[in-house]
Amino acid sequence: MSHLLETVRWSDGKVRILDQRRLPADEVYLDLERLEQVEEAIRTLAVRGAPAIGVAGALGLAQEAGRLAAHAAGEAEDCREELRPCVGDDGKAAYLAAVEAAAERLAAVRPTAVNLRWGLRRVCDDLRARARGPATPAELAEASLAEAQAILEEDLALSRAMAEHGIPLLPPEAKVISHCNTGGLATAGGGTALGVVLEAHARGRKVFVYVDETRPLLQGARLTAWELQRAGIPYAIQCDGAAAWRMRTAHIDCVLVGADRIASNGDTANKVGTLSVAIAAREFGVPFYVVAPRSSFDLSLPDGEAIPIEQRDGEEVLRFGGQPVAPDQGSAWNPAFDVTPARLISAWITERGVEQPPFS
Amino acid sequence: MSHLLETVRWSDGKVRILDQRRLPADEVYLDLERLEQVEEAIRTLAVRGAPAIGVAGALGLAQEAGRLAAHAAGEAEDCREELRPCVGDDGKAAYLAAVEAAAERLAAVRPTAVNLRWGLRRVCDDLRARARGPATPAELAEASLAEAQAILEEDLALSRAMAEHGIPLLPPEAKVISHCNTGGLATAGGGTALGVVLEAHARGRKVFVYVDETRPLLQGARLTAWELQRAGIPYAIQCDGAAAWRMRTAHIDCVLVGADRIASNGDTANKVGTLSVAIAAREFGVPFYVVAPRSSFDLSLPDGEAIPIEQRDGEEVLRFGGQPVAPDQGSAWNPAFDVTPARLISAWITERGVEQPPFS
Repeated sequence: MSHLLETVRWSDGKVRILDQRRLPADEVYLDLERLEQVEEAIRTLAVRGAPAIGVAGALGLAQEAGRLAAHAAGEAEDCREELRPCVGDDGKAAYLAAVEAAAERLAAVRPTAVNLRWGLRRVCDDLRARARGPATPAELAEASLAEAQAILEEDLALSRAMAEHGIPLLPPEAKVISHCNTGGLATAGGGTALGVVLEAHARGRKVFVYVDETRPLLQGARLTAWELQRAGIPYAIQCDGAAAWRMRTAHIDCVLVGADRIASNGDTANKVGTLSVAIAAREFGVPFYVVAPRSSFDLSLPDGEAIPIEQRDGEEVLRFGGQPVAPDQGSAWNPAFDVTPARLISAWITERGVEQPPFS
Repeated sequence: MSHLLETVRWSDGKVRILDQRRLPADEVYLDLERLEQVEEAIRTLAVRGAPAIGVAGALGLAQEAGRLAAHAAGEAEDCREELRPCVGDDGKAAYLAAVEAAAERLAAVRPTAVNLRWGLRRVCDDLRARARGPATPAELAEASLAEAQAILEEDLALSRAMAEHGIPLLPPEAKVISHCNTGGLATAGGGTALGVVLEAHARGRKVFVYVDETRPLLQGARLTAWELQRAGIPYAIQCDGAAAWRMRTAHIDCVLVGADRIASNGDTANKVGTLSVAIAAREFGVPFYVVAPRSSFDLSLPDGEAIPIEQRDGEEVLRFGGQPVAPDQGSAWNPAFDVTPARLISAWITERGVEQPPFS
């Protein structure tokens, strides 16, 4: 994938992210050194997209595991009492509990995307399994970093696999609608839904993308358009409300979206506005595909009813770049996601292939 | 209607408008003195909303008719040759042609809303009928102003009648979704769809409004919220893409929208995004009402296919308050309107009552 971005990386003890709040104007990388910084970056969408925050969370937790190990060894300057000395089983239990607490803290920042919990859980589970042996906190921390880096590498491979399975669904000259950002910026660097488009283009296929701007934070206009422009793929940004009219007045081959959490019956939580586009796609007979890795599936949920929907600050709707766009004391309803019922989705493209529910 | 706004008025020889570009921050009135200013105000949406631009266009044309009459009488400083001397039949014909040309010029500014053409046509037709008698250009100009003012007064009465017919459709405690702005600001001062809500509230009914922000120009967030706040009606602004999720997760009694042009079969052109909301309303069994005066109907069109859709500058989507929100050289598709097919509309509320197509 020649279009690969370095959205999230491990760099010399730091979690390096491309700051998506400043795109498309500035391409700035941030080196995050502490848990609070990773938490803040995820909360403010400096790093966003379900797979990307799964990777960022795992790396952030591994970094914290290392810091806690230094505390445990008495090497940290501001040593935490409960971790010192951390030799013997009691100390190790305290260390594990502290890592688990950090994981909980990160997981709470964005409740809908299951990848964040999944990545954190994977690091914690690995740590807990290794802790049954003679490993010291320092050795455990090292292993957790290896696990987080494995998640990152796997994510890049997942993007390649999803593109492989998705490309055959596109006709030779495809016109697609995209919602939110699902490219390299939403993953470790490859992409889910937009990854299919990027890779199709890289292989010489013709694709035109109608980019839903994706209010309130304009991930489509700011991020998807930036990725498409960078790759030389033609596109037109449209207001979210215009997607239905686009399908009515032009031939659209398919809608490609990502996912934040998919229940076992296929109900899919994704960026708010997705449901609206899915209903319109059904109305106009346009295939509607969800492209997501299996780590976005939550098979503990029978359907979408139980997916928690993050409510974000109304100010995201009431202000724009600091400027108020509504009356003073105006109020807004600002769900970050919605749930599209499985019956409106034509197929789910995962690293395993083109799938249909029930998922197991 | 106690909530009446002075959106468009005739004031001492000038067309006075409330500058909607500056709301909700500033309540500023502009006195327009020349055709070019009226044209610019309509183009830049300082005055907008199908009925409001019908009134503004008629008043602007009457003002121009007066200016042309002064030319014809040789009273204007920068007298136009072809209008002087304007006595006898040839001069009167030249005068009428000049007024008609001004009407054409105004009509071309916003091609979708039929009210603009309708208001201009009404002034021109009246002028042409009177011109068959012995009236001078000065007398004709005076009559055209009376006609334009009659259109304004009638518009206020139409708002009252639509509210009267629309209120019985609301339950005692209503939750409605509104798209774009259809209140006093969209008319001479009363309102179409939002006029129903405003009047219901004035009569002591409880109404809560979910306000689609209405990208790209945020007429919902800026204008509808301003009107609701002013009237003390509770509301929450939502992103346009969230309307479907709102209908899925809360009981919504109905969607109320206005119209820019309605074909005889009921197909309805309205602010872009309306189609999307109508499809979602059908999906969730929510009644979808169009509230518009008969002057928004274009019975010369059998259906919506022939309604011209205004395409506006992509910069409205690519920039926000002067700030770019998309990459440099980004492109956008920016239709100002879409067409909702009649089958998705539950009823049309006009000054005549609750109507169903075919309209005649």
